[in-house]
Amino acid sequence: MIGRLNHVAIAVPDLEAAAAQYRDTLGAKVGAPQDEPDHGVTVVFIELPNTKVELLYPLGAESPIAGFLEKNPAGGIHHMCFEVDDILAARDKLKSEGARVLGSGQPKIGAHGKPVLFLHPKDFNGCLIELEQV
Amino acid sequence: MIGRLNHVAIAVPDLEAAAAQYRDTLGAKVGAPQDEPDHGVTVVFIELPNTKVELLYPLGAESPIAGFLEKNPAGGIHHMCFEVDDILAARDKLKSEGARVLGSGQPKIGAHGKPVLFLHPKDFNGCLIELEQV
Repeated sequence: MIGRLNHVAIAVPDLEAAAAQYRDTLGAKVGAPQDEPDHGVTVVFIELPNTKVELLYPLGAESPIAGFLEKNPAGGIHHMCFEVDDILAARDKLKSEGARVLGSGQPKIGAHGKPVLFLHPKDFNGCLIELEQV
Repeated sequence: MIGRLNHVAIAVPDLEAAAAQYRDTLGAKVGAPQDEPDHGVTVVFIELPNTKVELLYPLGAESPIAGFLEKNPAGGIHHMCFEVDDILAARDKLKSEGARVLGSGQPKIGAHGKPVLFLHPKDFNGCLIELEQV
């Protein structure tokens, strides 16, 4: 079911400093910050040859990563995103096997303009998993 | 400097259950458990089309992931590994810019038989980063 690893997302306490570190110290290809108001984050995409790293910084009062940064003030790996061909089929299979889907269970449009869902970390070894239909 | 994302590593409290979940529920290509006594872990490799996920389980009394699982009993994303062409050049550049390399600073031979180093999470947004020379 799962295909490519679309990205690994890192919540960071200082977006400008983190982007500069990936660009200058780690020598990666780093994009410009993009506000994603529907997701409560500002994102910087880091393009690696085979996948992406996404730096996440809270945007707005209801940001879903604000709590994570409170618990992890230095930042940390927030989630990983796997691609799927059919997000509704994936959701239904996972639910039928007892895995919990976060929120309403209806896919939202993610930062890449594609339908996404998040799976409950407690059902996946403490890892927040995003599924993105490609 | 950094190239491909070689893998994302997940520490898990039950290796057999986690491997079965990735194989049966998530439908991924999952290998057999491999003991890595030099690294204090038993590893299961999950091959995705563009990268790998590695499930890590403690092996031996000195396992470096035992403490992580004590703090995160459900498991969690433990580190991510970036490929580099020249690990000594990468190390020296990082050190010259103030980043801390864990351990002696000398590369060890990693689970894939290649030289690896780990970077201090406090210097990289709370993320444990492994560098692997390919």
